[in-house]
Amino acid sequence: MKRKNMITLDNIKEAKENLKDVAQNTPLTLAPILSETFRSEIYFKKENLQLTGSFKVRGAYNRIANLPQDKKDKGVVAASAGNHAQGLAYAAKQFGCNATIFMPEATPLTKVSGVKSHGANVVLIGENFDEAYAAAMKYKEENNVEFIHPFADDDVIAGQGTISLEILEQIPDLKQIVVPIGGGGLISGIAIAAKAINPDIKVIGVVATGARGMKESYKSQTPIDSASVRTIADGIAVRDVTPKLLDIIIDYVDHIVEVTDNEIANAILFLLEKHKLVVEGAGAVATAAIMHDKIDNIEDSKVCALISGGNIDVTMLSQIIEKGLVKSYRKMNLIIKLMDKPGSLTHLSDIFKDCGANIVQIDYDRDSVKLEFGEAQITISVETKGEEHQKTISEKLKQNGYRFKQI
Amino acid sequence: MKRKNMITLDNIKEAKENLKDVAQNTPLTLAPILSETFRSEIYFKKENLQLTGSFKVRGAYNRIANLPQDKKDKGVVAASAGNHAQGLAYAAKQFGCNATIFMPEATPLTKVSGVKSHGANVVLIGENFDEAYAAAMKYKEENNVEFIHPFADDDVIAGQGTISLEILEQIPDLKQIVVPIGGGGLISGIAIAAKAINPDIKVIGVVATGARGMKESYKSQTPIDSASVRTIADGIAVRDVTPKLLDIIIDYVDHIVEVTDNEIANAILFLLEKHKLVVEGAGAVATAAIMHDKIDNIEDSKVCALISGGNIDVTMLSQIIEKGLVKSYRKMNLIIKLMDKPGSLTHLSDIFKDCGANIVQIDYDRDSVKLEFGEAQITISVETKGEEHQKTISEKLKQNGYRFKQI
Repeated sequence: MKRKNMITLDNIKEAKENLKDVAQNTPLTLAPILSETFRSEIYFKKENLQLTGSFKVRGAYNRIANLPQDKKDKGVVAASAGNHAQGLAYAAKQFGCNATIFMPEATPLTKVSGVKSHGANVVLIGENFDEAYAAAMKYKEENNVEFIHPFADDDVIAGQGTISLEILEQIPDLKQIVVPIGGGGLISGIAIAAKAINPDIKVIGVVATGARGMKESYKSQTPIDSASVRTIADGIAVRDVTPKLLDIIIDYVDHIVEVTDNEIANAILFLLEKHKLVVEGAGAVATAAIMHDKIDNIEDSKVCALISGGNIDVTMLSQIIEKGLVKSYRKMNLIIKLMDKPGSLTHLSDIFKDCGANIVQIDYDRDSVKLEFGEAQITISVETKGEEHQKTISEKLKQNGYRFKQI
Repeated sequence: MKRKNMITLDNIKEAKENLKDVAQNTPLTLAPILSETFRSEIYFKKENLQLTGSFKVRGAYNRIANLPQDKKDKGVVAASAGNHAQGLAYAAKQFGCNATIFMPEATPLTKVSGVKSHGANVVLIGENFDEAYAAAMKYKEENNVEFIHPFADDDVIAGQGTISLEILEQIPDLKQIVVPIGGGGLISGIAIAAKAINPDIKVIGVVATGARGMKESYKSQTPIDSASVRTIADGIAVRDVTPKLLDIIIDYVDHIVEVTDNEIANAILFLLEKHKLVVEGAGAVATAAIMHDKIDNIEDSKVCALISGGNIDVTMLSQIIEKGLVKSYRKMNLIIKLMDKPGSLTHLSDIFKDCGANIVQIDYDRDSVKLEFGEAQITISVETKGEEHQKTISEKLKQNGYRFKQI
């Protein structure tokens, strides 16, 4: 028997009322470069600037708001290694409600302290999410407290749907909304609200190639769990498809596309450099889908990409910057052999200077047994101005008799 | 003779009218963590999210708007390696006005292409800003076009002052505004507008320790140019003090404080991680001043820190992340000697695993002539959870007989 969606626009409007003094009405602004590229009006809804760094606080807060007082008094429990944990901890604090969050033991310190900073109890347990989840369920049974699911919950979905109300209030004639899909709670809320206000609006979902369960399930109209998931968009790396959410998505979502980790990384770097925004993998998939031409009928249209969150590990961010610079020919890493004698480094650095390439890092080695006597090896990183510039540098090094390889 | 400020609140309101369809009314939101730390209400005005990535477009646009049509038709010229170039190029484009920007030859490609993308002509000339500036002045004379100064200009100052109108409209009972100082155009506009609306409001300026000319000049009430400037806040690394702006600042600014490059880097990392914002050095000084206790009477008050821009080189951003993680004991880099035999790496990695330290990078070397035969050297980076955690790891390595040093 097919489950019918029981969430109405009124539920979502009630959620908005619940959230009015809590959730930020996050900025929704034109993205000038993409708009020009696609001859369109492309907007970003910036939920990475939401309190706790993602949209999750909306659903979590609405869920607790709708609990009867005696349940609020008993407290809530959840399992999460990510944004739901922070959103829920923040929401619970506003109600003076006790929150206990089960997180896998390997959860990075910043995420643990983020949750603790909102006064929640953190229990670090288990090797992975499933084990933390099992522990949370056991705790719920033993303590008779309310379990707050990250997405498969009507009040949570209604909370996320408030994003649509804000978007359509600001741009009533919007044609398409592009939304990340993980468990599906976010896009369900967005789509239910948007279609209730304007049935002609298109809602497009985006999954990561490494976690495409919902896309496969949508296509075959039946839940297909993934054997495993692997993507830099950890916020949407959901393995199992919840039948009820699949049904909503089949009914309300017009199309689902996918983006690769490389495309996601490109979008993260673009948002960082051009929009001054820190965006996590999951938060960047909608932008990635637009940038990489996965969305139809963009031209002469009004399209909103939802940036869902910004909780990315800064070490990961560094890696994305580094790889992005190399891939876009803005950085060149070289290993060069040179004679270990006075002046040889100067001669080399003159070549880079003449080419207008700025040296950013040097590692000099003359002690490796792999080297001939009298030889030294230098690993060098230079800032470059594009593919042509890199070719010029290579040519120049060859002309001057250097042996080198690009790494 | 002391120069009197001729800029009025009316000029700034006119500027606001000029800018109404161009400049974003950028987000002004509570900073929850700092507010809790300082038992205050601390707000961020996010001009890094302004078009072109900084507030500069306000002044540049207002300047061109106030030109007579025949001057607009002739075009404008400027010298800048930074935010003024982008802001002016964008502004000129809106008027269909020809802009020529002189930039030093070594200007990074991203900045050059940012300016070109708005249709401006870029002339790369000179070894430094002064040479580019001289070339721009020569061009102005030869072509009889209008020179647009980055800060020493009434229309430019009035444009920057519109930020105050937006801030005080949203928070009329604000007590203090904390503002970066470079040339002084931004704080002049901010202070003139703010004091005209509310004479009791305090305006605090922040310079970088490496470019403290305006602070010294303010103290001695006479212009003191710096011999040289050096700071990661390149947007406020201004060497010479403009007498007219010093006079405005003496009249309107209540206090000037300074922050070090380390403090600025801390603020950049804080804004990146906790607020999901990319902020350049100059843009982070006001936040740095608050974080590092440089501002008096914050408690039980309402204070706004101006985040002035986000145009930071991503390579620099990577370095700030890396150094910040090491300094805050969240990353530990070690060089460890170990026996070059099967299993020795496993044994070592088991130690890190037992300590709950996640290995993020490994560099294995057994070819250096500095090593004894049978010895290998490993350079390893691990994610750690704080100072105590790092001590535990060191102890454990010692107990297991490893020779190592931390780098």
